[in-house]
Amino acid sequence: MSKISNKINFGNYFEDFKIGQKIIHPLPRTISEGDVSLYIAFTGSRFSLHSSDIVAKEFGYKKRPLDDLLMFHLTFGKSVQDISLNAIANLGYAEISFPNPVYVGDTVSMSSTVIGLKENSNGKSGVVYVHSIGVNQNNEEVLNLKRWVMVHKKDHSTRSDINEVPNFDKTTKILDEINLPKISSVNTDASGGKYFFEDYEVGERLNHPEGITVDDSDHTLATKLYQNNAKVHFNDHMMQSTPMKQRLMYGGVVISMARTASYNGLQNAQWIYSINSGTHSNPTYAGDTIYAYTEILEKIDHKREDIGLLRLRTIALKNLSSNEIEDAKGEDGKYLPNVVLDLDYTVIIPKKSTKK
Amino acid sequence: MSKISNKINFGNYFEDFKIGQKIIHPLPRTISEGDVSLYIAFTGSRFSLHSSDIVAKEFGYKKRPLDDLLMFHLTFGKSVQDISLNAIANLGYAEISFPNPVYVGDTVSMSSTVIGLKENSNGKSGVVYVHSIGVNQNNEEVLNLKRWVMVHKKDHSTRSDINEVPNFDKTTKILDEINLPKISSVNTDASGGKYFFEDYEVGERLNHPEGITVDDSDHTLATKLYQNNAKVHFNDHMMQSTPMKQRLMYGGVVISMARTASYNGLQNAQWIYSINSGTHSNPTYAGDTIYAYTEILEKIDHKREDIGLLRLRTIALKNLSSNEIEDAKGEDGKYLPNVVLDLDYTVIIPKKSTKK
Amino acid sequence: MSKISNKINFGNYFEDFKIGQKIIHPLPRTISEGDVSLYIAFTGSRFSLHSSDIVAKEFGYKKRPLDDLLMFHLTFGKSVQDISLNAIANLGYAEISFPNPVYVGDTVSMSSTVIGLKENSNGKSGVVYVHSIGVNQNNEEVLNLKRWVMVHKKDHSTRSDINEVPNFDKTTKILDEINLPKISSVNTDASGGKYFFEDYEVGERLNHPEGITVDDSDHTLATKLYQNNAKVHFNDHMMQSTPMKQRLMYGGVVISMARTASYNGLQNAQWIYSINSGTHSNPTYAGDTIYAYTEILEKIDHKREDIGLLRLRTIALKNLSSNEIEDAKGEDGKYLPNVVLDLDYTVIIPKKSTKK
Repeated sequence: MSKISNKINFGNYFEDFKIGQKIIHPLPRTISEGDVSLYIAFTGSRFSLHSSDIVAKEFGYKKRPLDDLLMFHLTFGKSVQDISLNAIANLGYAEISFPNPVYVGDTVSMSSTVIGLKENSNGKSGVVYVHSIGVNQNNEEVLNLKRWVMVHKKDHSTRSDINEVPNFDKTTKILDEINLPKISSVNTDASGGKYFFEDYEVGERLNHPEGITVDDSDHTLATKLYQNNAKVHFNDHMMQSTPMKQRLMYGGVVISMARTASYNGLQNAQWIYSINSGTHSNPTYAGDTIYAYTEILEKIDHKREDIGLLRLRTIALKNLSSNEIEDAKGEDGKYLPNVVLDLDYTVIIPKKSTKK
Repeated sequence: MSKISNKINFGNYFEDFKIGQKIIHPLPRTISEGDVSLYIAFTGSRFSLHSSDIVAKEFGYKKRPLDDLLMFHLTFGKSVQDISLNAIANLGYAEISFPNPVYVGDTVSMSSTVIGLKENSNGKSGVVYVHSIGVNQNNEEVLNLKRWVMVHKKDHSTRSDINEVPNFDKTTKILDEINLPKISSVNTDASGGKYFFEDYEVGERLNHPEGITVDDSDHTLATKLYQNNAKVHFNDHMMQSTPMKQRLMYGGVVISMARTASYNGLQNAQWIYSINSGTHSNPTYAGDTIYAYTEILEKIDHKREDIGLLRLRTIALKNLSSNEIEDAKGEDGKYLPNVVLDLDYTVIIPKKSTKK
Repeated sequence: MSKISNKINFGNYFEDFKIGQKIIHPLPRTISEGDVSLYIAFTGSRFSLHSSDIVAKEFGYKKRPLDDLLMFHLTFGKSVQDISLNAIANLGYAEISFPNPVYVGDTVSMSSTVIGLKENSNGKSGVVYVHSIGVNQNNEEVLNLKRWVMVHKKDHSTRSDINEVPNFDKTTKILDEINLPKISSVNTDASGGKYFFEDYEVGERLNHPEGITVDDSDHTLATKLYQNNAKVHFNDHMMQSTPMKQRLMYGGVVISMARTASYNGLQNAQWIYSINSGTHSNPTYAGDTIYAYTEILEKIDHKREDIGLLRLRTIALKNLSSNEIEDAKGEDGKYLPNVVLDLDYTVIIPKKSTKK
């Protein structure tokens, strides 16, 4: 006669969260060369800063820093167990920044503070707003983000009517101090691109030509590597009894594929300064081919003379080449069915004066 | 006119084995950070000891030791070429222990001694019993195991009638000395679990909720990484002409998936002391989703005051959630069709006094 | 109103190449332990020199050198963007050599010189001949190769009638100096093979028994790891509108699978000295099982007393076991449909005197 244990962690429900509550996410993660190679295998990423120690040293780094998005996935994955395991939907994110570079050998960990709660009128669920901070082994911030998710309530009969919704900046604030070595010269033979800050103009649209197909092993290996344990990405047996009938790709995989595609045309924009907002407008499944195009939304001067920032909107598409679509949304203002990501983010790109 | 070479190694047949024979398996293997990352990508494993150098150092290690099962697969894989390439079936294993930790940079190798032989009455095959020992570059034991496999005979017309069957202990002997640093404190924020030796009771059953689907690339990449060259796992063309009609998943992949699932409820049981016995009760193929539940069979006190041991029975299931099955076997005493693994093993878990 | 950017790199067309032109390929690549582990996961390679630091040190290396083919893929991949992105066909290669070993931590880069151009009579395309050299961070050559590809013309109405075709040696010249430590002893327990230079004879044929099935994730992960961005390997959506109706496997993946299969029978031939020529006679797709057989074409004595060279012809087959085919070509002189690779290459193998 076995006795069913009460030691299983089923994640948090809406009622488990309180404003001001701090959650330390388990599972600090030491980053290895294996993670870096796997990320290249998953994406085919071609940014030279993350490919070559020599390029990194020319930029003033001690060695290759991690691709910002790889660091994001490895750090963010820790928060899923506590925040979004019972999520109905990941509704949004804002004010994401990457304050310090991360290197192989660093150990990253993550904690979150609940900054908002809103019970839904149906009494069955609510929205949880958190501010999450990732740090390295020296307690230096490497990731700073806010996000909100809709989670189930445990008990549909009780009501709190809580409605504390925080405000978010439309774009992540750009600081005067950026932790990036002063760039004296950019080796365009290495980066593969000859365009700099001054070359881009607002309204310019880059139709990235490459499309990459993602298979089940690709996206599940990646998401397991990130120790993101949201069941929808892994459990085909469970998903068979949902309308999706298959595993859903982790949205972060789509962001990475879009960023990789953006290399062609933005070869020297090797640093993500911030992610301002993002919408995963349609689901992505194994077998889908991901394309992307990018619009230059804004050119941002910085007090530093070696760099500028470009605020970009990258649209990721499934099974539709970037030159076959004019607008991400139809006349009704809704996203077209092949549009899977609408990402508003800001990158750092050197100025012409740094051209070697 | 080409001449067919006689230099091909087709593996050993029953007649090639002699009692007392020692076999040095080729291919010592230096373990890398890449192996560690790939193992996390294959399994999504979340045990903190193997995820973070900082956690490992808090436990008294110099850095992350290898996950015991990753070390097992990398070491064990070497023996397939000599022992089980012509196996009809891997019948069983016993008295498996993990005497010393293994680290990235170590080089492991494996040798085996034949300890039993039993010719089958049909004259076509026989059972070979071996005692295999894996060592690191300093000749320290890192794996000690016994197993028995049924292999083909080369010549069905000859008979040896050999019948020397060794005895095996029902459970691996637990030694007074365990090569594990004295545990002064356990960081439960890092491990993600708050339960310790004293909290578990015999008869308790943990229904691990996570299920993970395994695809063809996942299991073949893993088994190739382990340099396990048993053809049934890799050669779809050959398998098409067998009743299975597809590649069979290496049983070690199933053990790893079950161990990973067991994290939820056993977060602080981060060390496998021994594997006492195991049965691969049904085959597993690509597309199967692996679930698991665990029964606490025995609580074992140790002369050390910081730790205790739990003897566990973990049942792995395919395409059936752990709360949907009461018993692994039906009324006829046979395993139910969704039961793919019945593993009897012993883990080490710190005592409450170590709780940080 | 967005303005379509002109910053996209669509690769070079026939008119973009000039005799004598030197192209520095972007994206120098630092090689990591992750690359090494992934290569073993892709291939299951069992050559002991690349598996064990201890074996490598016994041979006189400081640590495991990279598998020659892994180095080839990582270096070669850089040239695709500039040379063969618009290739109609990769027609051939010649005089490939591996002058110096490469280690984890090295950074490799690649440049090419145009050594021949031939416009096709149809006016739509032409053949480009390049001499490509890969170097490490100390500018030491690690790869030297010539290849020719057929690429599209941008403008079909113009004619240059250029017809400068270089000559290639039938086999790569063998130098008196080989950058390989003097081999004092070979540990055959580690290598798994007991045959040496003297044991092989011209005309001998080794039917390697292992077949390995390659899936979509396997070959696309590998080709992305090599940062080879030829679209035919990745973009299933685009390939659906071609006669192939699916992604084409990178020919280098087939070469690696054939080399891995050749381990069984050639365990001590751990160094590729050169690739003399190669033909990818039929396409390979996901789901194909790759087998191989090898013929000894030539035994080449070297002034060094510890080693000899074997010129080999390895035929890779899809979905056909190596003992089921007598000749790669039919009576009409054409390759049979299951033959996917005909590789003429030269390996280094120690002499009997080195046997431990």
